[in-house]
Amino acid sequence: MTEGTGQATAGVTVEHHLLAEVVTRQLEAMLSVGNYDAVKLLLEPVQPVDVAEAIGNLRQNLQAIAFRLLSKDEAISVYEYLDTVTQQNLLSLLRSGEMQEVMEEMSPDDRARLFEELPAKVVRQLLDQLSPEERKVTAELLGYEAETAGRLMTTEYIALKENQTALEALDIVRRRARDTETIYSLYVTDNERRLTGILSLRDLVTADPHTLIRDVMTEEVLSVRTNTDQEKVARTIQRYDFLAVPVVDLEQRLVGIVTVDDVIDVIEQEATRDLYAAGAVQAGDEDDYFSSNLFTVARRRVVWLAVLVVASFFTSEVIAANEEVLQKVVLLAAFIPLLGGTGGNVGAQSSTVVIRGLSTQSISALGPLKAVGREAMAGALLGILMMILVVPFAWWRGESPLVGLSVGMSLLAITTLAATAGAAFPLLFDRMGLDPALMSTPFITTCTDVAGTLIYLKTAEWLLVNLPQLLTAAGISTQIAPVLLS
Amino acid sequence: MTEGTGQATAGVTVEHHLLAEVVTRQLEAMLSVGNYDAVKLLLEPVQPVDVAEAIGNLRQNLQAIAFRLLSKDEAISVYEYLDTVTQQNLLSLLRSGEMQEVMEEMSPDDRARLFEELPAKVVRQLLDQLSPEERKVTAELLGYEAETAGRLMTTEYIALKENQTALEALDIVRRRARDTETIYSLYVTDNERRLTGILSLRDLVTADPHTLIRDVMTEEVLSVRTNTDQEKVARTIQRYDFLAVPVVDLEQRLVGIVTVDDVIDVIEQEATRDLYAAGAVQAGDEDDYFSSNLFTVARRRVVWLAVLVVASFFTSEVIAANEEVLQKVVLLAAFIPLLGGTGGNVGAQSSTVVIRGLSTQSISALGPLKAVGREAMAGALLGILMMILVVPFAWWRGESPLVGLSVGMSLLAITTLAATAGAAFPLLFDRMGLDPALMSTPFITTCTDVAGTLIYLKTAEWLLVNLPQLLTAAGISTQIAPVLLS
Repeated sequence: MTEGTGQATAGVTVEHHLLAEVVTRQLEAMLSVGNYDAVKLLLEPVQPVDVAEAIGNLRQNLQAIAFRLLSKDEAISVYEYLDTVTQQNLLSLLRSGEMQEVMEEMSPDDRARLFEELPAKVVRQLLDQLSPEERKVTAELLGYEAETAGRLMTTEYIALKENQTALEALDIVRRRARDTETIYSLYVTDNERRLTGILSLRDLVTADPHTLIRDVMTEEVLSVRTNTDQEKVARTIQRYDFLAVPVVDLEQRLVGIVTVDDVIDVIEQEATRDLYAAGAVQAGDEDDYFSSNLFTVARRRVVWLAVLVVASFFTSEVIAANEEVLQKVVLLAAFIPLLGGTGGNVGAQSSTVVIRGLSTQSISALGPLKAVGREAMAGALLGILMMILVVPFAWWRGESPLVGLSVGMSLLAITTLAATAGAAFPLLFDRMGLDPALMSTPFITTCTDVAGTLIYLKTAEWLLVNLPQLLTAAGISTQIAPVLLS
Repeated sequence: MTEGTGQATAGVTVEHHLLAEVVTRQLEAMLSVGNYDAVKLLLEPVQPVDVAEAIGNLRQNLQAIAFRLLSKDEAISVYEYLDTVTQQNLLSLLRSGEMQEVMEEMSPDDRARLFEELPAKVVRQLLDQLSPEERKVTAELLGYEAETAGRLMTTEYIALKENQTALEALDIVRRRARDTETIYSLYVTDNERRLTGILSLRDLVTADPHTLIRDVMTEEVLSVRTNTDQEKVARTIQRYDFLAVPVVDLEQRLVGIVTVDDVIDVIEQEATRDLYAAGAVQAGDEDDYFSSNLFTVARRRVVWLAVLVVASFFTSEVIAANEEVLQKVVLLAAFIPLLGGTGGNVGAQSSTVVIRGLSTQSISALGPLKAVGREAMAGALLGILMMILVVPFAWWRGESPLVGLSVGMSLLAITTLAATAGAAFPLLFDRMGLDPALMSTPFITTCTDVAGTLIYLKTAEWLLVNLPQLLTAAGISTQIAPVLLS
């Protein structure tokens, strides 16, 4: 899609979804009485993305009618914004002749994304109808791996030659302005299509008309490869405040560009993925969580839950194996959730900051070892601070200073361990080339639970069972033990 | 800052932080032997953001020397990218005369952000040195509330008049190109500075030179107000694929524009905030987590931890109050973490998808009541699925079908409750105008823990204590009770 310029429907303050709803209702009313001229008038000043949402909200049979009422140019830009279900519906309802032009004129990157979702048979048909050139481009884009620069890029850009003058170049820009994704970043290539320089329309507009492109362009070009991960592409554009970044193949040949609007969606998608991972929800096509059916929802959540339940069986085993000490002081059980919860929360905090730090690259200045060390110290510090709250409570509720001591000592060990693990696992995963968010917060929480419960019950056993026995054996039970256990 | 065009340092594949590190080391070596010409050569082809990072990595006294070696234009753009600490350091080390020009030429929005961080005395001094015009602009920007369009916008944009020709307009664009934030979105205002239309440089370049702006521009302008929340501004630019959005005051007067590069940072910042809330870490200036000292780190984490610890005291109380049933069947304690954990995870999943759905506005199509209803059903469904795993395990480990039954029934109740609460609380907070992320995942987890433990122990008490008593009283204990309890 091309950059918008700011045109929109009447309202000044923006309530996107309200707007689309209003348009939908008006559209429905007009279509049902067959007042097609009113529909055209209604939709004319509305932004393509809002028209697309309104059409998507209509009943299936009305969608095709509304879509037919759009002008050719409108139809093309609206179609790119429709959700996949509506796109497919229109493909099946409208005559292939009507859709052929839309397909032909779509941005190559949007078209590739649509084709990915369609059945192979339909794709073959559509590809056959495309002009040889567009067919080649689409097949090429579909050949790149998902979530790489190759898949994200568009092949519509303006390439200039070094020996053209600024005047000639401006003329090319003028002629190509209508059918290219951006005219604001311009690329200079040699006869082998190798990228040799770059300039902005700003440079071109301010240059003397007779200067050669060679003298206006910048030779130090920052580019990405077709197989560069989409998140890295996004970070590059974000860091340098680019409007677009060129994509080259192994031979340095320019094959496409990625524009800033696509990059915003990537950043959003990656953030959703990190958040979902932290919340133990499987990543999917994140946009559709609230429109997917209950079984899809359950499927995306049940796998993680099952893993976590099985992990918590180990906690149960640890408790069952230490039944003896619990039988002796039943109140010890009262602190298991407290310790597990606090450990889990500290671990979650550490993994959250580390996973986010890896995403935004703010952790790289520190190095992994130092980062883990810092978190371990933070965990210990937090443990000590929490002891101030927890030890008096445990002493009082557990009716013994030894219970308070057991809970306090375990708390310190657990928070330190949790912070260390919470920082170390995502970093380790990242080192191994895996997604650090896989080593997600709930997983660390659950691991902390098992280890924490074991530490706690063993500490309690030693202080409440073994220590008194030792004291008795040493013959000092009568003096100290009652005081400690009272 | 103005949009970059893609110029960069030599390397083609991008490893941003590695690059800055290499530059830093070279810079240090050259500065320490006083080879200043080499420094100039080294930095010349490097992007401002990379130069800024390299200078930020230097020792304090070297920072000023390196900064002085930059050309005036370079110094201005590099300064905007420096972190606040380095900016302040340079302000104090360099003569005020040297910095005056940098301050004068900075983008108004970047300057306002810097002034916010400086001590009031320094700000007053710097303001005094600015030209009256820049001083007015800065004071104005500082007057808007943080995180609104007013604070995010720049006042450097190109405004045209309706009765200018395309040729005249292009000439204005050419002249203003060097000192304005973007030349790609152009704004049309009347004599009262009211925004009457908008056009893109693309429109201007392709228009007939003698056409009036009035006939090229679009009158339906989508704009935001100075007090519009920054997240809403970001969503507008993202939704419509804009490069910039105009900001107007209550009288529809154009006061500034927000550009896409600032919006990317807002989207990133909001995502970090959501993630931190989910991980019980207090939001701050998110970028600096890994560069802040241990006590700042602890402060940002301890408040949430303390709240959660106090909440978990209630769980302890619930367990202590039900000591009796635990004394009877100690193994019941083994399932407390399992039930609490599963409930917590289901609640976390629900709050994650709802909080994210509110952020990306993907939940709005569904409406709050339906969303909660869906989550409740999903919770019940997940509870039933988990029972398949958990009931046999509890039966075997608890050595009684009644333990299995208690655990299974509680599990279903807990997952349903957790999913409902996890969805309802963020939505309620959003309704009340509060940040839904405040009703964060760990809070819901902890609440679920208290309620879940109570449900479990009461169910177990009824099935394992009350039911056998009832059966005995009815005189059927000899036939059924032993079978159930064996």
